[in-house]
Amino acid sequence: MSLMWSVKVVGLGVVALSLSLELLGWVFGRCRRRRTLNKVLFFPSKVSCVEHLFSENSACSCFCPLPHGVETSFSCLLRHILSASSSLDLCVFSFSNMDMSRAVLLLHSKGVTIRVLSDKDYSAITGSQIGVLRKAGVCVRCDAGSVHMHHKFAVVDGRLLITGSLNWTLTAVQSNMENIIITEEAKLVQPFIKEFNQIWALNDPALSYKR
Amino acid sequence: MSLMWSVKVVGLGVVALSLSLELLGWVFGRCRRRRTLNKVLFFPSKVSCVEHLFSENSACSCFCPLPHGVETSFSCLLRHILSASSSLDLCVFSFSNMDMSRAVLLLHSKGVTIRVLSDKDYSAITGSQIGVLRKAGVCVRCDAGSVHMHHKFAVVDGRLLITGSLNWTLTAVQSNMENIIITEEAKLVQPFIKEFNQIWALNDPALSYKR
Repeated sequence: MSLMWSVKVVGLGVVALSLSLELLGWVFGRCRRRRTLNKVLFFPSKVSCVEHLFSENSACSCFCPLPHGVETSFSCLLRHILSASSSLDLCVFSFSNMDMSRAVLLLHSKGVTIRVLSDKDYSAITGSQIGVLRKAGVCVRCDAGSVHMHHKFAVVDGRLLITGSLNWTLTAVQSNMENIIITEEAKLVQPFIKEFNQIWALNDPALSYKR
Repeated sequence: MSLMWSVKVVGLGVVALSLSLELLGWVFGRCRRRRTLNKVLFFPSKVSCVEHLFSENSACSCFCPLPHGVETSFSCLLRHILSASSSLDLCVFSFSNMDMSRAVLLLHSKGVTIRVLSDKDYSAITGSQIGVLRKAGVCVRCDAGSVHMHHKFAVVDGRLLITGSLNWTLTAVQSNMENIIITEEAKLVQPFIKEFNQIWALNDPALSYKR
């Protein structure tokens, strides 16, 4: 074997090795991208029993007359809310849905750090769950600075954004045409986390005592 | 040179070539991913002059008392709406913002195919721009099937989704706390296109004549 051939073989080997590393990076990149959740839910949702979502035992038996074992937009939304293991930041204009309130209370009882921001006017209307959450010891702040705090978003564990047109009410879930985006896309999640922290800090009750 | 060495060299060459192709694909993939727009806008927006966005001449002179040359959430939103070159599908609960109406009319005058879906009740309130658009010849359909058609989204050229909590009103833009996501992420855009087409078809006036 000539020296030139040896050089060529070694060179090709180096190229093959570096390209293999690039390929590995590409494969890992693709796997990571595939895992990034991007989901859209539309409402009104079909009505089904969601009792199993609140039970530790996934095979819970419920004898209510609603359809069982059916995945609907609402059960999917509830599942993602209930997936919180460390924190739930919730910023919602109107909150009167009992199942969603029950989900927040369940997470609170499990030690998940909950922060709830709501609109001052709408938190006081009949059926609002804001008072219920407050009484249960959930941290709640109401915005009085703007005409309306009209957001409807939640951030689960600082990584999952749930946002859209849907207020957390029964009418929104069962009667209106609404949409919800559920995404882990950092470029979308991070600005919402920043926005939440800003509104949360602006509505610190300690600030109003100082004024 | 032995036969075995030739086989090794050719084999390594093939590996290097295939990996180079993978690398090229990876580079193109990364470039494409980088270009995928994912943006979040928050409101209320600062108020600034948006006259230049409606002018063919980018250096248009406006002498109104509002700040000029300032990029705000609203000017950014308007810019993305006005970027439509072939179609704009708009599905919005409440539409009374004059600048946004002007943008839709400008696109219509340029030959962009516009379809507007709105809520039946809210399209009839004082200040609604739905009648103005209809009179100008824009295709408008109002949903009467649900309690409220509460969506607030637009799809530009079948590729760009604009969605969030913001109704197309002056209060939403200048006074409320609101959010808008602007994204080209296909997994988010495509379901909204499908949803729009379904609601559009469901509210075809020809269907109500047949009923």
